[in-house]
Amino acid sequence: MFSGAQLSLYPMSDDFVAVILGALDALDPWRDRLRIETDDVSTLMVGPADILFPAMRDLFVAAARGGVHCTLHATVSRGCPGEPDDPICTPPEGGLRADAPLHTRIEAARGRVEAAKETGQPVAAQFSLYPLGLGHHMDEIYGCIDFVKASGTFEKSKHFCTKLRGDAGPVFETLSQAFTGFGAQAGHVALDVTLSANSPSKF
Amino acid sequence: MFSGAQLSLYPMSDDFVAVILGALDALDPWRDRLRIETDDVSTLMVGPADILFPAMRDLFVAAARGGVHCTLHATVSRGCPGEPDDPICTPPEGGLRADAPLHTRIEAARGRVEAAKETGQPVAAQFSLYPLGLGHHMDEIYGCIDFVKASGTFEKSKHFCTKLRGDAGPVFETLSQAFTGFGAQAGHVALDVTLSANSPSKF
Repeated sequence: MFSGAQLSLYPMSDDFVAVILGALDALDPWRDRLRIETDDVSTLMVGPADILFPAMRDLFVAAARGGVHCTLHATVSRGCPGEPDDPICTPPEGGLRADAPLHTRIEAARGRVEAAKETGQPVAAQFSLYPLGLGHHMDEIYGCIDFVKASGTFEKSKHFCTKLRGDAGPVFETLSQAFTGFGAQAGHVALDVTLSANSPSKF
Repeated sequence: MFSGAQLSLYPMSDDFVAVILGALDALDPWRDRLRIETDDVSTLMVGPADILFPAMRDLFVAAARGGVHCTLHATVSRGCPGEPDDPICTPPEGGLRADAPLHTRIEAARGRVEAAKETGQPVAAQFSLYPLGLGHHMDEIYGCIDFVKASGTFEKSKHFCTKLRGDAGPVFETLSQAFTGFGAQAGHVALDVTLSANSPSKF
């Protein structure tokens, strides 16, 4: 199994370098479980699927805390057949759920979002889930949408994606559950997400 | 058929609202062939698959021209079974290629990139192609990677995505060809892309 994310943090500020550098400390508690590499477009985080979103949450909340309009974009992937196995990606026991019926996975995912701790930082998010290599990929997508609509973080359906809004704690947990709970458990799943904080636009 | 993009433009500047508003005129020549809707996270463009990237190119080049570090993220989709048919999305004759063998599509795509006009704006880009609902999705992905490696815009392979660099003209044409030339012609294909201009980071 190989899992990880390519992520980019965009502070809409002349001071964007300082905002990014100032937020990086928030990744320290996660560094022993992640491999991190940066270039001019994105930062790669390789590690177990279930800690990718908690680590991104801490980074994004730290960047947004100063009030600057910030966005984060991530392309998150697990089980890509073109990637090598990597021991750092092995989930801890109880990490990824075994294949279970869709309704059981929806219930479990809702429970995890309900239990998520609030951070005090409101965010908007929108994401697309891509369960690859499956003839019945829309079943998994519709199952995931059912979960998200009942998660308490759902704002609206949009073309090509689903929009969330709420505290960063439950919003990132919703994304984490969508990524780990849907699509084949040993299969290839990608998720594309954009998060936004402190936007001057109100809709 | 339904096709379109959710896109967001991120100028890393205190003046980000003015940079975005100043770039919007560049979409004027495309507006009669697109339906455009905006909220606080992204702008939806609905229209034929083959004009989505040319329209995004004009928007991004206009935003980057002032020298501000700008990025653009887009989630681009065609043929999603959950979306309604929309006449605005019908490609003009000769728009989408009919199903053809992979090597023919690779050659045709290379020719289009070679013919692309330069804009004078250098950009970096990285993208992921998601051909959905296919058991053999990796064949299409590998075929697309073969095309990109021979396109003249290829920089490097990264985990989960492929990185391009060059003038915005051929780079956006490479993305457009990847989106329209690979995956089932009548099937569900999504593409996720991040573009960057005027970055202070050099790698």
